[in-house]
Amino acid sequence: VERSGKQHKNLENLVQHINTLIDRQALVASLVDKQEMRRHELVQSLVQREKYSELRRQLDQLHPADIAFVLENLPRDRRQLVWSLVDKTHYGAVLLEVSNAVRETLLQGMNQQDIVGAAGMLDSDEIADLVQGLSEQAASELLSSLESKDREEVESALSFPEGTVGALMDFDVIRVPDDETLDETLARLRQRGRLPVDSRVLMVVDQKGLFQGTLEMEALLVNPGSTSVAEVVNRDAVVFHTDDEAQDAATAFQRYDLISVPVVNAHNHLVGSLNVEAVLDYIHRASQKDLLGQVGLHEEESDLFMPVWRAARNRWPWLTLNLLIAFIAALIIGQFEATISAVVALAALMPITANVGGNAGNQSLALVIRGLSTNQLNQSNMLRLARKEVSVGLVNGLVWGGVMAVATLILYGDFRLSLIMQVAMVVTLFMAGLTGVMVPATLKKLGLDPVLGSSILITGITDTMGFFIFLGFAALVLAAL
Amino acid sequence: VERSGKQHKNLENLVQHINTLIDRQALVASLVDKQEMRRHELVQSLVQREKYSELRRQLDQLHPADIAFVLENLPRDRRQLVWSLVDKTHYGAVLLEVSNAVRETLLQGMNQQDIVGAAGMLDSDEIADLVQGLSEQAASELLSSLESKDREEVESALSFPEGTVGALMDFDVIRVPDDETLDETLARLRQRGRLPVDSRVLMVVDQKGLFQGTLEMEALLVNPGSTSVAEVVNRDAVVFHTDDEAQDAATAFQRYDLISVPVVNAHNHLVGSLNVEAVLDYIHRASQKDLLGQVGLHEEESDLFMPVWRAARNRWPWLTLNLLIAFIAALIIGQFEATISAVVALAALMPITANVGGNAGNQSLALVIRGLSTNQLNQSNMLRLARKEVSVGLVNGLVWGGVMAVATLILYGDFRLSLIMQVAMVVTLFMAGLTGVMVPATLKKLGLDPVLGSSILITGITDTMGFFIFLGFAALVLAAL
Repeated sequence: VERSGKQHKNLENLVQHINTLIDRQALVASLVDKQEMRRHELVQSLVQREKYSELRRQLDQLHPADIAFVLENLPRDRRQLVWSLVDKTHYGAVLLEVSNAVRETLLQGMNQQDIVGAAGMLDSDEIADLVQGLSEQAASELLSSLESKDREEVESALSFPEGTVGALMDFDVIRVPDDETLDETLARLRQRGRLPVDSRVLMVVDQKGLFQGTLEMEALLVNPGSTSVAEVVNRDAVVFHTDDEAQDAATAFQRYDLISVPVVNAHNHLVGSLNVEAVLDYIHRASQKDLLGQVGLHEEESDLFMPVWRAARNRWPWLTLNLLIAFIAALIIGQFEATISAVVALAALMPITANVGGNAGNQSLALVIRGLSTNQLNQSNMLRLARKEVSVGLVNGLVWGGVMAVATLILYGDFRLSLIMQVAMVVTLFMAGLTGVMVPATLKKLGLDPVLGSSILITGITDTMGFFIFLGFAALVLAAL
Repeated sequence: VERSGKQHKNLENLVQHINTLIDRQALVASLVDKQEMRRHELVQSLVQREKYSELRRQLDQLHPADIAFVLENLPRDRRQLVWSLVDKTHYGAVLLEVSNAVRETLLQGMNQQDIVGAAGMLDSDEIADLVQGLSEQAASELLSSLESKDREEVESALSFPEGTVGALMDFDVIRVPDDETLDETLARLRQRGRLPVDSRVLMVVDQKGLFQGTLEMEALLVNPGSTSVAEVVNRDAVVFHTDDEAQDAATAFQRYDLISVPVVNAHNHLVGSLNVEAVLDYIHRASQKDLLGQVGLHEEESDLFMPVWRAARNRWPWLTLNLLIAFIAALIIGQFEATISAVVALAALMPITANVGGNAGNQSLALVIRGLSTNQLNQSNMLRLARKEVSVGLVNGLVWGGVMAVATLILYGDFRLSLIMQVAMVVTLFMAGLTGVMVPATLKKLGLDPVLGSSILITGITDTMGFFIFLGFAALVLAAL
């Protein structure tokens, strides 16, 4: 029993061990007198070499995914050092497992020969994943190093747009002619020595290569050997097309408990299979992207310890928009300076509705993002959700606006402030529910990503509206009462 | 080819069809004169009966997961109507597929006999899932209706705490004695007629029932039949314990591309298997829970169209906290009324830093939530992330605080406001980075759910701090300059 659910605890220890190892080296280096440096370095390098060879042995025993985990959790300089200790035969597998951001940092330090060597260990669809992270020159050199069949497959994989089934599928499937018997099939499998790791169903094709259905392992095992494949082929199997959306496919995997699904092209030719491992990775990546994208974070930030300057710059586009909206809010508030001057308490109370509105808007937003990602929401029922959310806003605005109105009366003893608070809460929460649903719905309708930066947008809009509603109504009330 | 990735498009149409059907019925009913009602109802009921029987036929052809999708997308009253049209032999499977919230609404309308009947179609671990949604009385009646072996398994499944491997696993595994040959194993499988759907590896046990390893389908198929199981058993397979955390198991599935993993108890007895379908569902649910939980939404809200009053009440606990924090912010601002009276422009400018701080805090928060859910973050590197995030805050505070300072100078021509803006931006973004990391880290350390309501907390804290920093520094500057 080599790996278990608690493996990551061991990996965390290893990461810490590496950090301590390198920290100590740096500490020693900083302590010794510069004149002694040379001699010390010699001794040190011998000691280090021994330690590193121990580390190298530990790394050799790890699963490529675990090596990837260790690399992801090290700062960049240490990551390069550890990467150089990893056995080169693992390079390909590890590169596939690390996040895009980390992969880029690793590829930067590799020469062309290592990259070609790493690709040599991979399947076509995996090479395609790798190629996308390479510079144009490195990519074309890598492609030209491949055999022509492999190159064709890689190029075909690259031709499918991101987010489609074609881009996620494996090319490596076992084709079974529909006119042989189960015994013949079994004999061929035995002769092959092993199954491709990812194939748990066999794909049945006719003599023209047209897809006929699947042959489940179960059917192969439990039926008499003389049965012909055509008799037990499952013609009702779920099938995907290369241009199906990956998100729809992921929903289908979840809904129908799928493991491995044949993928055909527009002419019903079998071209590959989509496997649950790829779907699991896709779902994981997509949910992370939703989580980060909502607050305007780049996917690259999944490298938690990227350099500060780069992380700071990554946040500029949305920060700019954020500041712009906030500035507009400030200009709007500026219009009410006379009102605020008259009753300064307004300045203290106005952030309450804006803040509550921001949270309420983000709640509605979360429901929309969730509904869109599960295909539960669509154009036809979006309005119904908006209706529900504004109703919830009205109810809570009445109830909690009432509570806040009483609290305001007790604190300030001013009936007008109390009235302003009550009305502003109702209107703000109503608008927040509407905004939380309609902003992502509109982005989606315009063909934009409804998730990206949505939280920043919603908070900006609800803030601005919150202040405007509160101060606008305050101006009316103060003028009238 | 019955189902595909685009199936949900058809389902959306069906949902709309049902809604139109019922809407038209309601419309007709509201139009006819009350005196005519009786006669009309008779005619109508005949027409309806025909339409509903057509609907019933359509529902019969759907996969249970698709029926679940249709039910989830209907308002409650219509949901009950459609549920009554579903074939009762599908009840069990459909109940497993719907979300917890919707399951509850369906169970409310069922009598004990239907519930027991539904359970009759399910495996023990599935019945355990079902029992958790039942009232205590209904649950115990259901349990007493089971055979003793099944009841034991259900009770054992119920005894594992939520979030552990035990609670997710299947009991139904095929045990293979390690002393038989592959031919014997194959013959037994054929005799059984079929494999349990979820088992893709066979579990090898010794005579005492102790777990020895797995027998891959591949090994069974490609080795000569006379090989003994003990020779080809895979002793290096990943194994989980019943009390392993589900999240760790999910990470292992993703990392090692697992499909079906044996689960043993503390005595190394094989008790079941954890399968990728259950893990896929778990990951899906967990990511939804993160998305909703962050903004303080109850899991129940995954029923998008729940009644308004209930949805409104669900949001009260976090709304109360939200208002409390906002009220504290108002009290703090209240302390600076004199300052604001002196320069009313402060009231317009102060929300800028608070809003930017809120978004920055939520960005850091998203990184923490993501890092925790992938096990990439732990106590040992949390501080390093905090250091990075405050550094990013300082850089962006300097750069964009500078931009805002210039904009303020142009707009108000007051150097003091400009200085206040620059300093407040740096300090607020610094604090936002710190808060965004330390609040969830602290909750986690206290054994609380770091996700729940975290966005509301962070926004509240950064808002309050943002106002305090801005106005506090403004008071100092105005007193000095």
